[in-house]
Amino acid sequence: MEFKKEQLANGLVVIGEVNKSAKSTAVGFFVKTGSRDESKEINGVSHFLEHMLFKGTEKLAALQVNEAFDRTGAQFNAFTSEENTVFYAAVLPEYLVEVTNLWTELMRPALRNEDFDIEKGVIKQEIAMYEDLPSFDVVDRCRKLHFDSHPCGNSVLGSKESIDGLTADQMQAYFANRYAPNNMVLAVAGNFDWDQICSTAQTNCGIWQKQPVSRKLDQAPASKKKERLGKSNLSREHICLMSRGLSAQDPKRFAASLLTMIVGDDVGSRFFWELVDNALAETATIQLGAMDGTGVFCSYIRCGNENVGKVLDTVRSIFSSLSSSGITEDELTKAKNKILSALVIKNELPMGRLIDLGFNWTYLQQYRTVADDINAIKAVTVNEIHSVIEKYNLGDFTQLSLGPAQ
Amino acid sequence: MEFKKEQLANGLVVIGEVNKSAKSTAVGFFVKTGSRDESKEINGVSHFLEHMLFKGTEKLAALQVNEAFDRTGAQFNAFTSEENTVFYAAVLPEYLVEVTNLWTELMRPALRNEDFDIEKGVIKQEIAMYEDLPSFDVVDRCRKLHFDSHPCGNSVLGSKESIDGLTADQMQAYFANRYAPNNMVLAVAGNFDWDQICSTAQTNCGIWQKQPVSRKLDQAPASKKKERLGKSNLSREHICLMSRGLSAQDPKRFAASLLTMIVGDDVGSRFFWELVDNALAETATIQLGAMDGTGVFCSYIRCGNENVGKVLDTVRSIFSSLSSSGITEDELTKAKNKILSALVIKNELPMGRLIDLGFNWTYLQQYRTVADDINAIKAVTVNEIHSVIEKYNLGDFTQLSLGPAQ
Repeated sequence: MEFKKEQLANGLVVIGEVNKSAKSTAVGFFVKTGSRDESKEINGVSHFLEHMLFKGTEKLAALQVNEAFDRTGAQFNAFTSEENTVFYAAVLPEYLVEVTNLWTELMRPALRNEDFDIEKGVIKQEIAMYEDLPSFDVVDRCRKLHFDSHPCGNSVLGSKESIDGLTADQMQAYFANRYAPNNMVLAVAGNFDWDQICSTAQTNCGIWQKQPVSRKLDQAPASKKKERLGKSNLSREHICLMSRGLSAQDPKRFAASLLTMIVGDDVGSRFFWELVDNALAETATIQLGAMDGTGVFCSYIRCGNENVGKVLDTVRSIFSSLSSSGITEDELTKAKNKILSALVIKNELPMGRLIDLGFNWTYLQQYRTVADDINAIKAVTVNEIHSVIEKYNLGDFTQLSLGPAQ
Repeated sequence: MEFKKEQLANGLVVIGEVNKSAKSTAVGFFVKTGSRDESKEINGVSHFLEHMLFKGTEKLAALQVNEAFDRTGAQFNAFTSEENTVFYAAVLPEYLVEVTNLWTELMRPALRNEDFDIEKGVIKQEIAMYEDLPSFDVVDRCRKLHFDSHPCGNSVLGSKESIDGLTADQMQAYFANRYAPNNMVLAVAGNFDWDQICSTAQTNCGIWQKQPVSRKLDQAPASKKKERLGKSNLSREHICLMSRGLSAQDPKRFAASLLTMIVGDDVGSRFFWELVDNALAETATIQLGAMDGTGVFCSYIRCGNENVGKVLDTVRSIFSSLSSSGITEDELTKAKNKILSALVIKNELPMGRLIDLGFNWTYLQQYRTVADDINAIKAVTVNEIHSVIEKYNLGDFTQLSLGPAQ
């Protein structure tokens, strides 16, 4: 396992972790842009742009993009979040250069007006589809409520209104700035030749122009508002709780992840035993959403309408017992085993490794081996988790519920 | 990479592929039993039994099972199909023996009457849930129609009626026969110590009793019936087509898989270009369901009701052009790249490797390396695919449609 790094004159960072015993290779562009980098007016443009990149370039029509991927047998996709837009592919080593060429080509899309108009309809369908998924919708709405009018609360998909109002010129301007080479990382993991990747990057991306580009990192609010919305098509109550959490840069993020495992992993957690196993709720989980300079703890609970009162009482008592009695060594040991298993298994595949490699660079400008993360997790103590509990009061939450119209 | 095999006196086969460079290990029990081994009366018992195994043993209550898995950090699950019931887990190497001990313990469940009664409700909920998923429901119903009254057409979940009628005694009798050691394989893949696994198996499973157990492999019919069912809650037409296909033992199964990639892969296939890209259908795929001694080609298409006529005409013309004009070298090359990528990436993880290892033994009593499969795929010629097309007429299909009530 060998780490490599080079930076082009225009600021594009190219990183790679070479693993000669891997059977495949994964490559991806990590663009540091997402819904938190959008104004209200253009909300949804990052995700829309992700779609538009597959519509082709001056040289390639959309069909040819499709065929070009097809030819390599690549498993490829892209996703957009609040803070990142990521394009990735896993391939057999002999097709890596071909796929990398294709991605670099797609990073400078044609953004044709006719494609823009057609894709608007697709995006609005996607928005409608997700609005029909209450487990997704409730988190989206709660984020907005929690962050109040701060851009960290922006929806990734945008709204029907913001997408309707978006113009091709606005997208073009957003693209020209945010997809600057100095705002992207090209990462490769698995079995590959580093020099070949570097010369591919230099040849294809060297002419891209550096831009002044940044992200607003002003303090994000935490509203602690409570709201409920009734919907006629729902039969269950969907509850989302959000409170201040640790950032992706915080050295205590490992302790915080272990805490969420103890409190609200799918199975075997306090939420599981007190809510799910007791049949008060059907599902109850908590996760850390570690973001750039900020973060949230986010719980999602689904239950029958008649149980809402008991469920919330139980959640409050779980949260307050953390402050009063802390956690046990035994809970920490189990949580470590679960996180370590998941980490090792994920990173065993070049595709899983790529994601950690890319995000560690995006957030930390740091190369971390899997062993670094394993050691950081193993080193977490009960006391360190107690200090997280003390600093971040889970009970101080914003609450949004979606449920049957009453 | 080293293959190991041992058979206990009671017939239990233990196999392992040791990969010292892997970071994790996967272990699983492959029980050769599924819905095709059920009579109409007890249809659904295999899947129900899979649930019951997690309810504990004479020594372990259900909660303790949960806790025991939790302690190891294992990623574990189980699934039941027409022909197999598989229990598996991926873990860090240091927890492999603990997890293997747990699985061997669970393979001799208590099957308590009170758990049986409660779980009946859970199973019926699962049946209702899947009936609400038309893409699943249409395939299930089409299988029944295609295989007529033959057990290969049995639903994995069973029906509300068959589950209601099932008794604990019937389940117990089914279990005692089908979970005999000589009808199971214990497989391990990844980084582990073979001798340790063998002694664990010997100690824990050596006392299990051999049973006379078999599967009926009489010729399965192919009805070619056509039916349509209207449902008031559907807005789209869901179409399933089934025709005779190759068995899991057929040496031409690789050629047949390549054929389905050419005809109906998600993207870049004939279905894709002529149905999806032309906006006649929203999705259109075909897959080979290779079974024990038999098999089906199964297409699934979703489209607007107004397009059904055109869609079926197009499908028929795609199928008949295969017979009249065959496929091209270029199509075969692309299909090979896709299948090889997917195969290599899947088998790179011990968990993915475990599944192929277990099924190759179950169906072929054969150890096949990943390289064996790669070479078999690379060796397929256009002519070999033409011989599959000639022998298996895709146009000779059973058809079931689910769509809006009219």
